[in-house]
Amino acid sequence: MIAQVLSDNWQLRQRSPRATLEEDLASHKGWIPATVPGYVHQDLMREGVIPDPFVGLAELEVQWVGDADWLYRCTFEVDDELLRMPYVDLCCDGLDTFATVWLNGQEVLHSDNQFVPHRAAVREILREGSNELWILFESPLRAGRRLQEQHGEMRAWNGDPSRVYVRKAGYHYGWDWGPTLLAIGPWREIRLEGYSARIDTVRILHEVAPDLSSAAVRLYLGLEGDLEGREVLVRLLDPEGHPAHTDLIVARNHIEHEFDLQFPHLWWPRGHGPQQLYTLQVSVREGEATLASRTLRTGFRRLRLLQEPVKGEEGSSFTFEINNVPLFCGGYNWIPADSFTTRVDRRRYERWLRLAAEGNATMLRVWGGGIYEADAFYELCDELGLLVWQDFMFACGMYPAHEEFLQSVRREAESAITRLHVHPSIVIWCGNNEDYQVAQSIGAYDPDISPEEARDTFPGRMIYERVLPEVCARLDPSRPYWPGSPYAGADPNDPTQGDRHVWEVWHGQLAPYQRYPSFRSRFVSEFGMQALPSRRTIEAFAPPSERYPESRTLDHHNKAQDGPRRIAVYLSDNLRAPCGLAEAVYATQLVQAEALAAGIRGWRREWRGRGRYGCSGALVWQLNDCWPVTSWAVADYYLRPKAAYYVVRRELAPITIGYSREGSRLQLWCSNLTGEPFSGQLEVTQWSLQGEKILQTSLEVNAPAYGSVELGEAHVHAFRTTVVGLRLLAGGSVIARA
Amino acid sequence: MIAQVLSDNWQLRQRSPRATLEEDLASHKGWIPATVPGYVHQDLMREGVIPDPFVGLAELEVQWVGDADWLYRCTFEVDDELLRMPYVDLCCDGLDTFATVWLNGQEVLHSDNQFVPHRAAVREILREGSNELWILFESPLRAGRRLQEQHGEMRAWNGDPSRVYVRKAGYHYGWDWGPTLLAIGPWREIRLEGYSARIDTVRILHEVAPDLSSAAVRLYLGLEGDLEGREVLVRLLDPEGHPAHTDLIVARNHIEHEFDLQFPHLWWPRGHGPQQLYTLQVSVREGEATLASRTLRTGFRRLRLLQEPVKGEEGSSFTFEINNVPLFCGGYNWIPADSFTTRVDRRRYERWLRLAAEGNATMLRVWGGGIYEADAFYELCDELGLLVWQDFMFACGMYPAHEEFLQSVRREAESAITRLHVHPSIVIWCGNNEDYQVAQSIGAYDPDISPEEARDTFPGRMIYERVLPEVCARLDPSRPYWPGSPYAGADPNDPTQGDRHVWEVWHGQLAPYQRYPSFRSRFVSEFGMQALPSRRTIEAFAPPSERYPESRTLDHHNKAQDGPRRIAVYLSDNLRAPCGLAEAVYATQLVQAEALAAGIRGWRREWRGRGRYGCSGALVWQLNDCWPVTSWAVADYYLRPKAAYYVVRRELAPITIGYSREGSRLQLWCSNLTGEPFSGQLEVTQWSLQGEKILQTSLEVNAPAYGSVELGEAHVHAFRTTVVGLRLLAGGSVIARA
Repeated sequence: MIAQVLSDNWQLRQRSPRATLEEDLASHKGWIPATVPGYVHQDLMREGVIPDPFVGLAELEVQWVGDADWLYRCTFEVDDELLRMPYVDLCCDGLDTFATVWLNGQEVLHSDNQFVPHRAAVREILREGSNELWILFESPLRAGRRLQEQHGEMRAWNGDPSRVYVRKAGYHYGWDWGPTLLAIGPWREIRLEGYSARIDTVRILHEVAPDLSSAAVRLYLGLEGDLEGREVLVRLLDPEGHPAHTDLIVARNHIEHEFDLQFPHLWWPRGHGPQQLYTLQVSVREGEATLASRTLRTGFRRLRLLQEPVKGEEGSSFTFEINNVPLFCGGYNWIPADSFTTRVDRRRYERWLRLAAEGNATMLRVWGGGIYEADAFYELCDELGLLVWQDFMFACGMYPAHEEFLQSVRREAESAITRLHVHPSIVIWCGNNEDYQVAQSIGAYDPDISPEEARDTFPGRMIYERVLPEVCARLDPSRPYWPGSPYAGADPNDPTQGDRHVWEVWHGQLAPYQRYPSFRSRFVSEFGMQALPSRRTIEAFAPPSERYPESRTLDHHNKAQDGPRRIAVYLSDNLRAPCGLAEAVYATQLVQAEALAAGIRGWRREWRGRGRYGCSGALVWQLNDCWPVTSWAVADYYLRPKAAYYVVRRELAPITIGYSREGSRLQLWCSNLTGEPFSGQLEVTQWSLQGEKILQTSLEVNAPAYGSVELGEAHVHAFRTTVVGLRLLAGGSVIARA
Repeated sequence: MIAQVLSDNWQLRQRSPRATLEEDLASHKGWIPATVPGYVHQDLMREGVIPDPFVGLAELEVQWVGDADWLYRCTFEVDDELLRMPYVDLCCDGLDTFATVWLNGQEVLHSDNQFVPHRAAVREILREGSNELWILFESPLRAGRRLQEQHGEMRAWNGDPSRVYVRKAGYHYGWDWGPTLLAIGPWREIRLEGYSARIDTVRILHEVAPDLSSAAVRLYLGLEGDLEGREVLVRLLDPEGHPAHTDLIVARNHIEHEFDLQFPHLWWPRGHGPQQLYTLQVSVREGEATLASRTLRTGFRRLRLLQEPVKGEEGSSFTFEINNVPLFCGGYNWIPADSFTTRVDRRRYERWLRLAAEGNATMLRVWGGGIYEADAFYELCDELGLLVWQDFMFACGMYPAHEEFLQSVRREAESAITRLHVHPSIVIWCGNNEDYQVAQSIGAYDPDISPEEARDTFPGRMIYERVLPEVCARLDPSRPYWPGSPYAGADPNDPTQGDRHVWEVWHGQLAPYQRYPSFRSRFVSEFGMQALPSRRTIEAFAPPSERYPESRTLDHHNKAQDGPRRIAVYLSDNLRAPCGLAEAVYATQLVQAEALAAGIRGWRREWRGRGRYGCSGALVWQLNDCWPVTSWAVADYYLRPKAAYYVVRRELAPITIGYSREGSRLQLWCSNLTGEPFSGQLEVTQWSLQGEKILQTSLEVNAPAYGSVELGEAHVHAFRTTVVGLRLLAGGSVIARA
């Protein structure tokens, strides 16, 4: 197979509503150089047509871009070699969103789903010499509204409600942390592929035996082209590069191939063992000649999602187990790292993911209002040992379920699973973000009827309970499928089972963050607290005259409903009122840090060991930002960590301690995520507000592996105006503090 | 009749729980001088036994006072003349609360209702030379809790729930603007009265004819003592002191006497006419000798509470009319002006009421969690032309209805009405404050059943719908009785009828104050916004180290649930965050001012003229404070007005203007409370934020009498970052602005 990437000689211009398409394309005016892959906004910015929407209030000035239609054109010559191939396909890995593609004047494909890659046979259309590729992108807002007119307006939290009809990243429509920037363009690579035979799909599923001594591997290959007389070579290399399995198979369109691996080198989540990755090489051969090949890296691990009784409590646990090791999944929610994801290169992914990993994260949740992330993201998660909770891209809305839409969703899910399933880091497929809650909020969720019966009232259930589980079962039965985040059956926010978003703090009645532990959940898949980004980040988007709390510019860069007033509440509850920007940055970051610590510490306490895993996860909303903004992120768009990042890191350390206090009584606990029992000294100190040490005691701590253990009571002076601190010591160093 | 006031030689001491009463009274230790009338706390403060609870956190240190029992004793000699009288009564005008009184060792009366005056015949117990009067005050907290144990705990907002069993000012138990200071003592005068005949009660009711040309006056007199052969002289003097009516009547225990006044000098509310007061002199005579006499001042006015259809709307109006003049009742809620009301002298009342009157208030509401105010209060309201909405003293609780309690309430209502009904300023008797809302909040209010049927679920209805209306109908049918504030039948907060407390702003979901006008009501009897008191006031209670927003001391002096965080919300919504105390004082006062203006302006707009009085009142919560505190008051404990006072004055002026703005469109209105049509020029000016005048237009305004009129639209530039101001001009001066 030969590929010719079409990345040069692209131009774009706004489609003129008064001209015919032909006139428009023939026009000499208004074209600017275009970057492919890329987005219209990026080129307009570079050319100075629009200001940078991340600066000041400029977002407001660029809204017209998403309202307009856009034309791309590219003139190219085909490589000779390619033209000699029996098959040539035009491959568009991602067109965002409503795109029609013409090659030499002939329409070759149409797309209405950002997440579906396309391929068109163009051998007969290509010519020697100059070829012309045209793409028309229709305004996603207008196209979505047309669909909305046809099918009816649906309820959506965040963004224009027409977005539920458009298979495009939800956050482009504006979210409570992100600007409204309807990115338009060929966001992933466009190329020609010439071949006589090619490997269309590679799926590799595995099941590690309960005793971890072997893995049953199943390989599914989909081949295209002329396969007669050709063979497929399959080679699996172990982490050291030694062949672990090799086979030569007669080529045919569909190949299923099974084999066992003895004593596989297991892939482990960070902190529990090495991230050992195998390399799978698949090639189509004719004699010694390789006609097509694919190489991918994967890993083998035993994955279970345990939903078992919790001793003495109602409901069931929600505990991920890898290689028989139970996990407390501390970590973060991940959103797209830019409003224009085309700007996020591998290096930027690496910086973000290293930050998470070094912050003791065990899991990231790829949230359903963004994108199925780039390969680099998952490759890095594999390498860093970060688990991934993968949402399908549905968020905070009532989605439709007409047949054409379900068809599109099915194709989208198939391509996502086919691309991503190789990554051992991914441990769950999840149907959506908060769509059950939206339905519940408008009284549309009735768990006692079937998705078919609910098709008019809550059509999305056809997606989450029919289409997606069917695709998952068919293409990747190796991972659990979960209908939504949160989901727990009858009540999406049931504290006794499933996962739960704890927004009683910040949203809801603005509960004090100190009450986090009282909002019980088997798995807290979202919770969070806003804080300002660092001063340097603010200086990057706010002009000097606007650098004060709640200036128009700062408020514009806080998209949360009532964001500034909610911040004001938590500041008022907890701290002396800050004066000016520097103090506000400090104060909000301190409150965020304390809040997240209170949540994690309290929930982790409930992770009490086998049979008693009361809570097995706490994912902070959110790790990252897509622009410079005041949000719940623990690090800002420029990767500058807020104070909370360091505090979360402390609270997610392998061994932690905690206490709750009532008057003179402290209830103490120790949490041990490791496989080794822990012994140490716990030092309890009480200070006056003037800094005098007024009490110090110490006790022995013994914490069994994989659990949190109550250490009983300690007593301090009852005065309210004192500070109590704990330090856990072992081998002469401080292991944990609280 | 001869009176001997017992105000000297009083002592008090804490009752020792280990001694018998006799031992305690005989003890020489621990007695301190006592002020009568007065409260224990005041004497303890003067003697340095307790700190001033208004300063710093001292309130916390004095709580034991309300937990203790207290003894008062007084040694006195009786005036010779008194002892020669055939009848001598000991009169206690107010004992707060659980009091037993012994004269020369003999129990003469017991009281358990602060609001009921007592009288005991003591002729036979008094002796020449030294007499000894003892009073034991039992802790109201303990006594109330005993009743609570007996009858069950009831729901109460604010204060210890046992308060609903105790006929004592509710706010003594602590309120969301007041400290917990369980005042104990003889709060009103104690005296001996010697007589052969006396005038027990004087009731004077009147009805002014619809054409105002005459008034039918009915006089009810209750006489005690030896009446045989005696006469009663009744003289009514007109405002100039000329006799308007004279009669000599044979003395008997009950006298009813009717007469007509032609062309009475009417009493008017401030701004609509003079406050003309008549003087009624009643004396019991034997020949030329006057044995007893009473003089009181009263006024005649035609009073109607109009509940009529409002054109084009549901429900009915709630409009007070005096002498056929419809009123928009702007004004204030009034709370006791001190935690120890014994400190509020006539001069302090006068300062407060002049402040209200000069602030264009039409009405004050004497709120049901305080006291039936001192005579001076109502006399001043009569003189100043301020209308009074008089609550009975029930507030924010589920009150009991056992027979003994109803009996006490009946006596209380009888004495209050008998004392107060002479005041023309009082225009409504109202059953309680927010008790229907408390019942509704716990699902206990079912308007479809009778008070008798609701006796177990909502016993208070026996008070508000049986006892009080019966007493009012019997003793004062001249005024409307209203069951509660708020009240509107099935839904206490019905926007289409009755009165309503608009707490969607501040409480509830913390609605922006700009939305005040959308919270419709026929009569807004409460609405408000907190602001800090002035710096001098803060300096009076906070030590220097605590003089910053949300310091422990400042937060202690804000009793509202979530007070500081709610302030933070409204600051955050509206202003640049204040730095430090001075800015916080300014900022909170500015927000309060803007908020109250938004409410009054919007509601007053609905007062649209005869047949269309959509809203006929807006009473700010609250005029005054009972201690130095951050509260909703527009002037603080030291009578220092906040900014809002001046803005409310502006918005309650006889003629005002207002506008609402959407983009470039202004909707304009003018409100005219006077009886004269108004003509003037309205000047609309728009400025840039830099202070440049960018637009000025002017239009003719004609506003009919007694109503608010829509002036149609004006247009300004649509830019959001401009300021629009209105000035209404007439005769070369600025009449109103907005």
